[in-house]
Amino acid sequence: MISHDLSGLSAVCEARAPVDAAYLADASASMGLRGRADAVALPADAAEVAAVMRWCYERDVPVVPRGGGTGYAGGAVPIDGGVVLSLERLTRVRSFDPLLWRIEVEAGVRTATVARLARENGLYFPVDPGAAEQSQIGGNIATNAGGPHTFKYGVMGKWVMGLEAVVPPGELVQVGGPVRKDVAGYDLASLLVGSEGTLGIVTAAWLALMPAPALRIPVAASYGSTAAGCAAIESVLASGVVPAVLEYLDAGAIAASGATFPGGLADDARFLVITESDTGAQDADALAEALGRTALRPDATALWRWREGVSLAVTARRGGKLSEDIAVPLDRMAQAIDEIVAIGARHALEACSWGHAGDGNLHATFLLASPEDLPRAEAAVHELFALAIGLGGTISGEHGVGWLKRGWLGRQWDAPAVRLHQAIKAAIDPKGLLNPGKKTA
Amino acid sequence: MISHDLSGLSAVCEARAPVDAAYLADASASMGLRGRADAVALPADAAEVAAVMRWCYERDVPVVPRGGGTGYAGGAVPIDGGVVLSLERLTRVRSFDPLLWRIEVEAGVRTATVARLARENGLYFPVDPGAAEQSQIGGNIATNAGGPHTFKYGVMGKWVMGLEAVVPPGELVQVGGPVRKDVAGYDLASLLVGSEGTLGIVTAAWLALMPAPALRIPVAASYGSTAAGCAAIESVLASGVVPAVLEYLDAGAIAASGATFPGGLADDARFLVITESDTGAQDADALAEALGRTALRPDATALWRWREGVSLAVTARRGGKLSEDIAVPLDRMAQAIDEIVAIGARHALEACSWGHAGDGNLHATFLLASPEDLPRAEAAVHELFALAIGLGGTISGEHGVGWLKRGWLGRQWDAPAVRLHQAIKAAIDPKGLLNPGKKTA
Repeated sequence: MISHDLSGLSAVCEARAPVDAAYLADASASMGLRGRADAVALPADAAEVAAVMRWCYERDVPVVPRGGGTGYAGGAVPIDGGVVLSLERLTRVRSFDPLLWRIEVEAGVRTATVARLARENGLYFPVDPGAAEQSQIGGNIATNAGGPHTFKYGVMGKWVMGLEAVVPPGELVQVGGPVRKDVAGYDLASLLVGSEGTLGIVTAAWLALMPAPALRIPVAASYGSTAAGCAAIESVLASGVVPAVLEYLDAGAIAASGATFPGGLADDARFLVITESDTGAQDADALAEALGRTALRPDATALWRWREGVSLAVTARRGGKLSEDIAVPLDRMAQAIDEIVAIGARHALEACSWGHAGDGNLHATFLLASPEDLPRAEAAVHELFALAIGLGGTISGEHGVGWLKRGWLGRQWDAPAVRLHQAIKAAIDPKGLLNPGKKTA
Repeated sequence: MISHDLSGLSAVCEARAPVDAAYLADASASMGLRGRADAVALPADAAEVAAVMRWCYERDVPVVPRGGGTGYAGGAVPIDGGVVLSLERLTRVRSFDPLLWRIEVEAGVRTATVARLARENGLYFPVDPGAAEQSQIGGNIATNAGGPHTFKYGVMGKWVMGLEAVVPPGELVQVGGPVRKDVAGYDLASLLVGSEGTLGIVTAAWLALMPAPALRIPVAASYGSTAAGCAAIESVLASGVVPAVLEYLDAGAIAASGATFPGGLADDARFLVITESDTGAQDADALAEALGRTALRPDATALWRWREGVSLAVTARRGGKLSEDIAVPLDRMAQAIDEIVAIGARHALEACSWGHAGDGNLHATFLLASPEDLPRAEAAVHELFALAIGLGGTISGEHGVGWLKRGWLGRQWDAPAVRLHQAIKAAIDPKGLLNPGKKTA
């Protein structure tokens, strides 16, 4: 354990030590992950972010950037000292041009704020991760966040037109801007997107927006088995319609949350498929036909409020859970969904999954009744990651590698790709001070 | 001028020397750019691509990858010897799963082939660059190609789910695959997309497809001035509809091509706006209302056949042209369009522009009546690039930097961003043998 003398940091920007516990954990805290930091820096603007990084880089002090703290992979948790750099004071909307479908916001602006500003101006920001009221745009960019509606509209990176970021040893860079197409330089914006704060700290972003769909018509249906439900998903894909979402819940997720499903579910429902047409009634009819005779049309507002509560309902079932976000090719989804339950059973754990079926992105979850279950759940998660890799998928569809999945990229990617990953990290952060230990192979 | 002894290359894969002239130029040949190479390698598969790169890397021989040769920036032109590595024999469609909206193709498969396979199976591949019959998927990826319909659906990179590529010193890597979401490692696929063969050679790609829109309804309208036309474009953006395309032609482009516009144009047309609804008649009506009283509905097939001929018609007007593809923020478009003509006038050249208005992506063009006009046109192009940068735009929206725009990235980006660009190149291609001289700052 290294301790750093950070007494000079407060001359650079507002800083606090000792560090409040809130800055030492993220949404993975239920798994017992709590870090340690020597100070928290609270820069007021991008220039101060650069100054903090310069100060730290000169002194070999680790810098751990922090957004809303809603991550599940421990990406924002300082593992062994250094400075937590919180973006919470960078909350300016720098510019907003609704008629040009674009907005420039600082990293600490909440996801829900962007969504609200868009909505109030007839526009739409489709990235809708689970904790949008708390998560920040900077963190959404650092993890390349998704959500149900990114099935049709693309994850965070697809809405980033330009980024302002601070890179080692403390330089402010701007790549892209209010331009919708740019192939002049390497795509540094996409490289920073999803890099989990290990290559640079995003301080602001130019985001694209789009006109809001006129009407949302959800269509859902339940089935008696995973196989029947996955067949329905394939029918939706073959319907000729691009649904706005294509979600599922398996039997365990229904057991935890189905009782409050808007309009109710059949007692024998073991698999739920949720789609939504945002292109009119005719497409909703086509989706309903693809889903078959059990199709129903829940109210959109009620449906999405209920859907937001699924994760909490699953947690409530036994008191705790360990949830991971693997993704697999669409044709391996039924196999993955059933295998998640089987992995749980092998470790004497109730297991379930739900998520973004159209993207093959599954929130695979092992329920915890007591802290004693945690070691078995961790063993189960290792089997889960091996399963995802074995099916040609990935250990993370939207949460990232963070600290908790460290070491798994090296099993997912072949050696030359891992070497590229590491060469880029070494080229941009030669001292390895940016979010150390995170997103490692 | 360096010459390389490549007598051993033919043991690695099929190779030819001397090099046929067809491999020494691209679509910029009209500007007199013709390169020099010691041999052309024609690998049969990805393993042979890796073997050629290994062979060259060990011997310090430059490697210039080549797709369909339809680029406008000299990106595929070998500047000073070495090996041209043509992907033309990598033409396999490795897998195609229409029901799962995905296809895996080798780099040498033609863009039009992917579009046709998709269409024949009720699907749609929206990337539609100008020379789709000749251009190859690998080249589309290397330049992050666009086209009219990428306004709504996104440029090439947004359709790449995974890449297989050969990177220095000759290793085959795979990043991504048949998975729609993956945040495990850095986004190496996006880094390779648009890198113009300077970081790696793409050998195959997993591409996403989508269901084909049921109906395309183009709506166009002409105006008496740039200002009126650009106001109409803003009305379209405010209409609440996301049009599939949002194109324009200025007065000069209309003078060159308007006579054959399907259905004809008014004599006093000085600006043409073209939109298309692929979401039904109601949205087409809304687009027509936004375009105003001159709105008309040309036949889709005739319109797009005509639109493909615009570039050639402009060339035909004086015999030659020098065309660049700047992009600017949408609110600077009218200014850019008028300034292009003014720049031409200052150099005694007729000038015009057309392109992807919704993306602010302008094909700015100076007409050449004789080779003597070329130096003045080159001076005009330099003013054009300075204009794009001054307006907060980019020197290239879709063609790339190649050889002809070398040095301009350093004027568009600030120094720290350029250093990142160069650090990445040095980290991945330490000998600088991959497409030397291209995409430099």
